[in-house]
Amino acid sequence: MKFSTSFFVSLIMIGLPVITSGADIKSSNNIDYPTGWQNWSSIAVSHRTDNNTIRIILGNEVAVEAARVGKINPWPDGAILAKVVWKDTQLENWQAATVPGQFVHVEFMLRDSKKYSETYGWGWARWVGADQKPFNQGAQVCISCHTPVKNRDWVFTDPAHFPTMQ
Amino acid sequence: MKFSTSFFVSLIMIGLPVITSGADIKSSNNIDYPTGWQNWSSIAVSHRTDNNTIRIILGNEVAVEAARVGKINPWPDGAILAKVVWKDTQLENWQAATVPGQFVHVEFMLRDSKKYSETYGWGWARWVGADQKPFNQGAQVCISCHTPVKNRDWVFTDPAHFPTMQ
Repeated sequence: MKFSTSFFVSLIMIGLPVITSGADIKSSNNIDYPTGWQNWSSIAVSHRTDNNTIRIILGNEVAVEAARVGKINPWPDGAILAKVVWKDTQLENWQAATVPGQFVHVEFMLRDSKKYSETYGWGWARWVGADQKPFNQGAQVCISCHTPVKNRDWVFTDPAHFPTMQ
Repeated sequence: MKFSTSFFVSLIMIGLPVITSGADIKSSNNIDYPTGWQNWSSIAVSHRTDNNTIRIILGNEVAVEAARVGKINPWPDGAILAKVVWKDTQLENWQAATVPGQFVHVEFMLRDSKKYSETYGWGWARWVGADQKPFNQGAQVCISCHTPVKNRDWVFTDPAHFPTMQ
């Protein structure tokens, strides 16, 4: 079945949604928003003085399992890392402490060596601000920044030590 | 049934375990080690320059649910907060970033307004170092440090903002 351009224009004019061949409007770099990341387990944390941010690195189950046993170069297919970034802010009740202030963005690296073979085995995505606006300037922006760790499977994070009671 | 002191001494002599009226040897301030805390969800993070540490604040399900909706003064009974502390360490591949180094300790606040009525509604516990040695110098050591936030239900942590896609 064929539809003319004017048919689609008509749909837009009357306000009906049009299914396009491109990515969903909420996707970032053609990657869908990972659901449930807010409650994923932790892998590490970081603090940056160059842009005054404080961060938690979370992982889905595949990523956390790999992190705990140190199987991270390469990370296994299916692993997803989430870096959650806030502005570094003074804690009111402890002068020498800083804590998360304004939310900046959440960034994801999704491991799939086949699907993302053209971007070093990772999908790269970011959603910005409290309204989670998708970043769509391409994976290369992410990759450029991660180049110093290309020999660490493109990941800055060293999993933190989470001890267990023996 | 009565047992003489010599009976218990005999048990010790032959190496059999003796059940004592005190806490388990692995407990901290008479509190049992919370299982599974390593994979709890995140509530916040903090960075301290006075003792060069970087921290994640995790919570059990009751705590995280309360944190996400801001019902934290008071926190609900059943909530457990875990503060995981590492030495703040330079990240090799990013000069302006610090990350978790040596593990220091994990501290817990366990909310039970009845059970812990004598310590402001919270149980206070800590396990130190990679071998998770229990801290047993009493809750007052913890409470003293938390006094600046007694009007915040004794908790320093402000839950960080974890946005969701609408």
